Amino acid sequence: MRPVPDRILDGHEVARRIRDGCVPLIAQRQERGRCPSLVVVRIGDHPAAQVHAEAWTKEAATWGLEVNVAALPVDTSARKAAGILKGLGRDRAVDGVALARPLPENLNERALQEALPPAKDAEGVHPETLGRCVLGRPGLVPTMAGAVLRLVDAAEVPVRDARVVIVAGPDAPVLPAALLLGRRDADVTLCRPMAADLGRVTREADILVVEAHRPALITPDMVKPGAVVIDAGVNAVPDEERAGRLRLAGDVAFEAVCGVARAVTPVPGGVGAVSLAVLVENVVRASAPPTHDDGTTAQLPLFHY
Amino acid sequence: MRPVPDRILDGHEVARRIRDGCVPLIAQRQERGRCPSLVVVRIGDHPAAQVHAEAWTKEAATWGLEVNVAALPVDTSARKAAGILKGLGRDRAVDGVALARPLPENLNERALQEALPPAKDAEGVHPETLGRCVLGRPGLVPTMAGAVLRLVDAAEVPVRDARVVIVAGPDAPVLPAALLLGRRDADVTLCRPMAADLGRVTREADILVVEAHRPALITPDMVKPGAVVIDAGVNAVPDEERAGRLRLAGDVAFEAVCGVARAVTPVPGGVGAVSLAVLVENVVRASAPPTHDDGTTAQLPLFHY
Repeated sequence: MRPVPDRILDGHEVARRIRDGCVPLIAQRQERGRCPSLVVVRIGDHPAAQVHAEAWTKEAATWGLEVNVAALPVDTSARKAAGILKGLGRDRAVDGVALARPLPENLNERALQEALPPAKDAEGVHPETLGRCVLGRPGLVPTMAGAVLRLVDAAEVPVRDARVVIVAGPDAPVLPAALLLGRRDADVTLCRPMAADLGRVTREADILVVEAHRPALITPDMVKPGAVVIDAGVNAVPDEERAGRLRLAGDVAFEAVCGVARAVTPVPGGVGAVSLAVLVENVVRASAPPTHDDGTTAQLPLFHY
Repeated sequence: MRPVPDRILDGHEVARRIRDGCVPLIAQRQERGRCPSLVVVRIGDHPAAQVHAEAWTKEAATWGLEVNVAALPVDTSARKAAGILKGLGRDRAVDGVALARPLPENLNERALQEALPPAKDAEGVHPETLGRCVLGRPGLVPTMAGAVLRLVDAAEVPVRDARVVIVAGPDAPVLPAALLLGRRDADVTLCRPMAADLGRVTREADILVVEAHRPALITPDMVKPGAVVIDAGVNAVPDEERAGRLRLAGDVAFEAVCGVARAVTPVPGGVGAVSLAVLVENVVRASAPPTHDDGTTAQLPLFHY
């Protein structure tokens, strides 16, 4: 079975549209004397942290942002790391900060995420960022949940009255999307990957979101014909075409599910690509903060989560 | 049909147990020289704000806390009000602060809620409080969502693998309970009160939580036999026993549903009573803050949300 190209919900295309939406704001900032500015903080040299840091740096630079990388030694103390993040929080020349993970083992990820002020939280990992987003208050957005909303939006599927099923574990970054979609009058079901009779639940979904990190968990028989399927899983699986090598795959049996669904996000090139764009968009948002005093969002030409 | 007394999930009883759980901590604080301390801020004299302020004051005093009421004039400016809340945030003699609502019309509720530091947020209304709770990080708890967890706990019903249905509008304070119950491996469905075929969804619930503010929305035919029903609705309805008077009622046809369900919370005396206890417990929590530096909760003898 071959994928039907027009059933691919292309994350790169959605990311490009997010960038296009930010161009006027970036230009406006440039006219006022400086670009939106991102600082990428990387501590130590874990390969995965390097990959993240490089992807963020490249994407933000492509958008025309100013990007600086703060590469700190692997033996940076917790106090020193927190101090640097707090310093970036106070630095008026910095709009957004992103901290590449994994961190060296002596550092606590949560504590450092909370050392960053929510107003500069490019990744949307501070608890206040999540709370503001879920409460519909102006602020930045957790990138993964934001990416789900943008993909649903791009699929041009009605959200009001839609049945949404989110298959994810208890700490999955995708979970806040449940409350964001609930705010848009969808009926949302959270379902664990281990749930008995998972297919019975997923088959009812008009919009199916999966973040289980289990390759091919979602097979065509578990998908309602015409559904939108958003695959936030990332797995390394054997590459059939190159013996002994691994390739990336999501949680959805992609080609087969393309034969049933209306639209499916690929992995790679789906949720990950959009999350990256949402991260950079967060920096642009941060550079043009809404007025908080009266509790309303400023009139920004930006997506409303 | 008459209510079956042992099917009433009594909020006052649950509240009493929450208080009992806090007694050792309060005593410990007293031995160290002072009680946990709550400041109730009331601006203007709206009757509902007075009712809230008095209920909080009375409950906290009953627990043995130190309570002070800051009653501010109705013409208090936004700047002045925010300044007072920030001042209480810095005051080391104050553990928790609660702001009675509704506020005078010139004041923005959200802005004032955010003026208070999350560490003293007795009501759990700051976005960071919500985010911390949903992410499972140490902190206080939004009172309504916390009350739902405590009532589920008191009903002694298994949460793992349970089907939970939450019937609520997009801004309902009860909604974060979805993610808290999801963290405990329940399958959770969020459903709007207006949903077509509501009964079909609610009938699948082992645990049914309702915050629709529509009297008698939930009738016995919509409830699975043996389910636990938590009624977070508050409505003023005509009092059949006193012509021309109103009485409080929830969203559940209480007496009739008692004939089907395993346990039902009454209104009044259910979620509201427990929310009040969770608010005071938040002050006790705030007076013995966990160590945040390493991201772990201190070994407090307090409920883990």
